[in-house]
Amino acid sequence: MDKHIGFFKELIGNYCLSDEATLQGYSHDETEDIRVLPLCVLKPGTVDEVSKILAYCNANQLPVTPMGARTGLSGGAIPAPGGVALSMERFNRILAIDENNHQVTTEPGVITQVLQEAVKEKGLFYPPDPASKGSCFIGGNVSENSGGPKAVKYGVTKDYVLNLEIVLADGSVIWTGANVLKNATGYNLTQLIVGSEGTLGVVTKIVLKLLPHPTADLLLLVPFYSAKQACEAVAAIYRKGIIPSGLEFMERDALLWTQQFTGDFSIEVKATHEAHLLIEVDGFNPELLMEECESILSVLEQFETDEILFAESQAQKNTLWSLRRKVGEAVKSQSIYKEEDTVVPRYALPELLSTVKSLGETYGFKSVCYGHAGDGNLHINIIKGEMTDEQWNHDLTKAIRELFTKVVSMGGTLSGEHGIGLVQKQYMDIAFDDVSLRLMKAIKQVFDPNNILNPGKIFMD
Amino acid sequence: MDKHIGFFKELIGNYCLSDEATLQGYSHDETEDIRVLPLCVLKPGTVDEVSKILAYCNANQLPVTPMGARTGLSGGAIPAPGGVALSMERFNRILAIDENNHQVTTEPGVITQVLQEAVKEKGLFYPPDPASKGSCFIGGNVSENSGGPKAVKYGVTKDYVLNLEIVLADGSVIWTGANVLKNATGYNLTQLIVGSEGTLGVVTKIVLKLLPHPTADLLLLVPFYSAKQACEAVAAIYRKGIIPSGLEFMERDALLWTQQFTGDFSIEVKATHEAHLLIEVDGFNPELLMEECESILSVLEQFETDEILFAESQAQKNTLWSLRRKVGEAVKSQSIYKEEDTVVPRYALPELLSTVKSLGETYGFKSVCYGHAGDGNLHINIIKGEMTDEQWNHDLTKAIRELFTKVVSMGGTLSGEHGIGLVQKQYMDIAFDDVSLRLMKAIKQVFDPNNILNPGKIFMD
Repeated sequence: MDKHIGFFKELIGNYCLSDEATLQGYSHDETEDIRVLPLCVLKPGTVDEVSKILAYCNANQLPVTPMGARTGLSGGAIPAPGGVALSMERFNRILAIDENNHQVTTEPGVITQVLQEAVKEKGLFYPPDPASKGSCFIGGNVSENSGGPKAVKYGVTKDYVLNLEIVLADGSVIWTGANVLKNATGYNLTQLIVGSEGTLGVVTKIVLKLLPHPTADLLLLVPFYSAKQACEAVAAIYRKGIIPSGLEFMERDALLWTQQFTGDFSIEVKATHEAHLLIEVDGFNPELLMEECESILSVLEQFETDEILFAESQAQKNTLWSLRRKVGEAVKSQSIYKEEDTVVPRYALPELLSTVKSLGETYGFKSVCYGHAGDGNLHINIIKGEMTDEQWNHDLTKAIRELFTKVVSMGGTLSGEHGIGLVQKQYMDIAFDDVSLRLMKAIKQVFDPNNILNPGKIFMD
Repeated sequence: MDKHIGFFKELIGNYCLSDEATLQGYSHDETEDIRVLPLCVLKPGTVDEVSKILAYCNANQLPVTPMGARTGLSGGAIPAPGGVALSMERFNRILAIDENNHQVTTEPGVITQVLQEAVKEKGLFYPPDPASKGSCFIGGNVSENSGGPKAVKYGVTKDYVLNLEIVLADGSVIWTGANVLKNATGYNLTQLIVGSEGTLGVVTKIVLKLLPHPTADLLLLVPFYSAKQACEAVAAIYRKGIIPSGLEFMERDALLWTQQFTGDFSIEVKATHEAHLLIEVDGFNPELLMEECESILSVLEQFETDEILFAESQAQKNTLWSLRRKVGEAVKSQSIYKEEDTVVPRYALPELLSTVKSLGETYGFKSVCYGHAGDGNLHINIIKGEMTDEQWNHDLTKAIRELFTKVVSMGGTLSGEHGIGLVQKQYMDIAFDDVSLRLMKAIKQVFDPNNILNPGKIFMD
């Protein structure tokens, strides 16, 4: 072990750390309460350093877990026992904003919101905006194929990645594609890397497509007396031909707990409000947006809603979005919990919600549900509350299997935007049969024959 | 050979054909003048039959070339010598249009335009529209990752494929993903299959995302005195924040030849018109579209254009689009030609055009250029004209290498939407280094260890 640290110290000096506090700090991401200490934390600053680290680890069969801001929710960035934590935090430069071609070339350690704001200054728009956008890295977004509220209109991370520079397990450096909007040249290595959770290569440069930045948006908060009706309204809005730029669902408790967590009670949540929809439209023409809102309101008339809040100022919009973005943290602050990131075709959302509640009754758990209703992506927070450890650790796994089995039978899958990582890999057999899993593992073998890149993630051994 | 045909006859009866006329018919696609006779033509009607055919071919190391409507332009559907031509033409049913989730499940042998019209009846929109949309199959579009004029606003085939049923080389049948808009569950096998030109599996079912169908569009034809200015205007329109639904470039000769080919001379092409842009905007609000057109016109004022034609009726729109769609056929009818499908970042288009012309002067070829200027995808038709066979077969390869090398140095690549197939594989080393090519070939080996699926395509042996 000392030999390895000696090599790394020689290569990157004090950017190789192995003191206890640093090891603790890099032993986890935001997934539940799992911690695994790495051998050491490496913070390379150049592609060449990454290449030399990987070549060394490959030769020595030393596991490497690439890390962004460690905000992930499936344990993708939790180190492998005895392995190296490879933090990309020093890759924090936006290399070029190409206004002529609407593209940006960036390093992976740039905070997503920083990137968004930098391109916005040029009138350009990078839409994917995970709840953690203020702290997560764009490289982590690429690795987990992150989404966020705007995905419903604008797509997820994969829809913006044009080209990647990656370092392979043996230290080779390649570009996966080209800086173009259309590409029919060989296999799509770019899309194979997006969402591969650091198991196929280490991303060192990212070329993203950008859009013109919308100049206006409107935001509505709609209280429903029935959570099921709120879900049904989502599909009804789409059937009307409207594509909102955000369509978020929050169960009553999600909102209440977030109010307690933030201390912001400016929204009145009545005892009869089972759920809320937060609906945003955006574009370039305020009058058109107003027409879209009117169309949405006419759809909502078919449902039983309480008084609709129309955000009147940017400050009020910020408050509403902040409430929505903080639900995850708020739930976490209340209890030990597990978060499932289920995704189904959006019309199946009411059925998914009632499945969750009925499983809760059978297995004795309480759940708080919220998420991106527009694209059928429901975050299900299962609260430990008064469950015994035995129930929590054993029975719940059975309940989650039942839940995922149902989700897959509805045309859905295990994760919409959080990834599989460490904590969901035991359920991969529900989404994929043996043949598909064998194909994926064989692809992993092609890229990483010694299994050094983020081993133990996505697949059961 | 008789043994093989005996097996196939037993399996699918008269849908195994080996008469001379059928073999001739299935010996080519629309690529130049290349013909290779298959051993036989198989037209299975069920997934089970495809599975049994592949399992047999795999066991007997018999090459299989999957075929759609054989309208491809890179030779992807040209049979391997002595191999089986696997025509998917009987897989011609649209299985389900899901209006609630804006999805369609279809078999691969449905004509793209038929699919578009079927979903349009439900108010839904499948945007990718290759020039051959009236005859090409949606399965071929998936295999080649086809684009078309609307790609600039709406993306290409890959952006709509949610899930695929495929038959692997050994006859196993898998689904690659799920019917959802967001997916962070394992490696993206779906996007690996899209654009893989029948070399990794045979697509038997396709689930596509749909959009609400726009209800209005406007179309402008803009004559430029300078082709370079026409290219420059493209980037200028985008910099203004406008995303047209079509932005097509046609060199003077492209339009003249097409007029001769179609006999439709309703557009006046003056001797001074070096190039035209065909610009479409679409959406749901006619007034907004008119505003967008005015914005475009204000951008065009910076350039020297002749009188702009604003299409006044659906008939006139059809005429203009038909002229654009028939350019390829028109050029083909005039001379032996080679078509390159170069793609660059759109701002580099003027430089690409002048590179082409300057190579033409050096190597003595004439070229007709047209294509999807909005996404930097320029189709370069190189005309044999008075070149000797020696020049055509030898010198031209050198010229094309120079062209592609330049394209790649500009951040572009070999093919935007036609694929690599048979005729471009000799240039793959320009777009990808050895490491990347080895990765791709190893992926091929994972899916198809006996190399029976469309062998000889994409990669040099």
